[in-house]
Amino acid sequence: MKISIIGAGNVGWHLANRLFEKGHDIDTVYSRNIKNAIALAARVRTKAIDKLEEIKTDSDLYIFAISDNALAEVAEQLPELKNNLVVHTSGATPSSVFKDHFSRYGVFYPLQTFTKEKKVDFDALPLCLYCNNNADFITIKHIGKSICHNIYEVDDKQRSLLHVAAVFVNNFTNYLYTIGEDILQNEKIDFNILKPLILETAQKIQAHPPAQMQTGPAIRRDSKTIQQHLELLEDNPKYKEIYQMMTQQILAL
Amino acid sequence: MKISIIGAGNVGWHLANRLFEKGHDIDTVYSRNIKNAIALAARVRTKAIDKLEEIKTDSDLYIFAISDNALAEVAEQLPELKNNLVVHTSGATPSSVFKDHFSRYGVFYPLQTFTKEKKVDFDALPLCLYCNNNADFITIKHIGKSICHNIYEVDDKQRSLLHVAAVFVNNFTNYLYTIGEDILQNEKIDFNILKPLILETAQKIQAHPPAQMQTGPAIRRDSKTIQQHLELLEDNPKYKEIYQMMTQQILAL
Repeated sequence: MKISIIGAGNVGWHLANRLFEKGHDIDTVYSRNIKNAIALAARVRTKAIDKLEEIKTDSDLYIFAISDNALAEVAEQLPELKNNLVVHTSGATPSSVFKDHFSRYGVFYPLQTFTKEKKVDFDALPLCLYCNNNADFITIKHIGKSICHNIYEVDDKQRSLLHVAAVFVNNFTNYLYTIGEDILQNEKIDFNILKPLILETAQKIQAHPPAQMQTGPAIRRDSKTIQQHLELLEDNPKYKEIYQMMTQQILAL
Repeated sequence: MKISIIGAGNVGWHLANRLFEKGHDIDTVYSRNIKNAIALAARVRTKAIDKLEEIKTDSDLYIFAISDNALAEVAEQLPELKNNLVVHTSGATPSSVFKDHFSRYGVFYPLQTFTKEKKVDFDALPLCLYCNNNADFITIKHIGKSICHNIYEVDDKQRSLLHVAAVFVNNFTNYLYTIGEDILQNEKIDFNILKPLILETAQKIQAHPPAQMQTGPAIRRDSKTIQQHLELLEDNPKYKEIYQMMTQQILAL
């Protein structure tokens, strides 16, 4: 398969490298920042461009790995791809962002948090696919299977809910970790002490439903400990607010 | 070392087994529920009792692995241990709960979430120790080192903060996982899709400070996506409330 990559950020970077490793032919790498395009193109042995008008029209698939806000704007500047197969990698944007610009479009959404420096475990990664027509869905499913084990067909509505759920379990969870670190730092306690607990919490729910794994003073209705904790958080109204809201909701389970 | 275990719940169960495996002599297992005491005693080849007055007074260490609320009450019923070394395993209760009952006391707090069915990785587990006198601290540190790699000296104030922080990173995080599962269940989306993300979120901060790992619409100031998410949560005021509070706090970082 000949694949063009539009965007050389975290997602574009990891996807292009993985596709290349698995034997796909990366046609072009576009980035508005030519340095990023060159760095990625060198890895996947292809040409780097920073002008949309230089994109070739004979790729089998165009993957838009750019920010949600830029999707419509970039699509508008590529009328020559009207009849090509085009997908984006966003969890938050419906496939219909492409409706007025392309006839064959879909979504190629790897549900994972990407960091450029850290290797992505594609084998464990869930790839959420959607296409506006069956024939092309088979194509992107075929490409998806060549780089990932876990393929899911997910429509726009489902993907938007997955994205919200991901914000809870990833972004908000990371913020709770930040609070944990901050509480300890103020007393010069080593954050490393909490790391095994953080890992075990995530590992437990790989095999058990989280609702059954709930522990702590709230689910035990241990009002004495809750009261002590609220007193300890007295000087930090933000954390106290989260503590109270979470505790109330767990008490109501 | 001869060690008596008071309490055969999750913590008592795992601690007794680990101490026994590492060659310690478990003197007695007490539980007010004799069945629990017998089950654990059989594993660690000792006697099970359910009457406090049957506890022998010649153990080198007594580990109280019972609920926070029961600590003072049980201590009061054991005047014969006045001059023995006694520790509890609680994160929430200060060591001073023993002050009026024993002359040599401390804390032996394994900072981990325990489930009876799941094997505990003692090698990775942080053990937080405290003692009201130096000689006995050396003893419990010696015992701690025989079962764990990561030993920390943590006083009552520090341990209370560790316990609050653990509630954020463990109990509240697990509740966020529950929310994620619930959001998906309503649309019949497989919760398995989120599991690799949950694991990666916890793994990332093993090597990087969580404050530097924050991603998502709030930290990107992506108000369009935040707005979409709030609309998706319209029918669930509880989750919406958490979304708004977390988002506001991340926006203020």
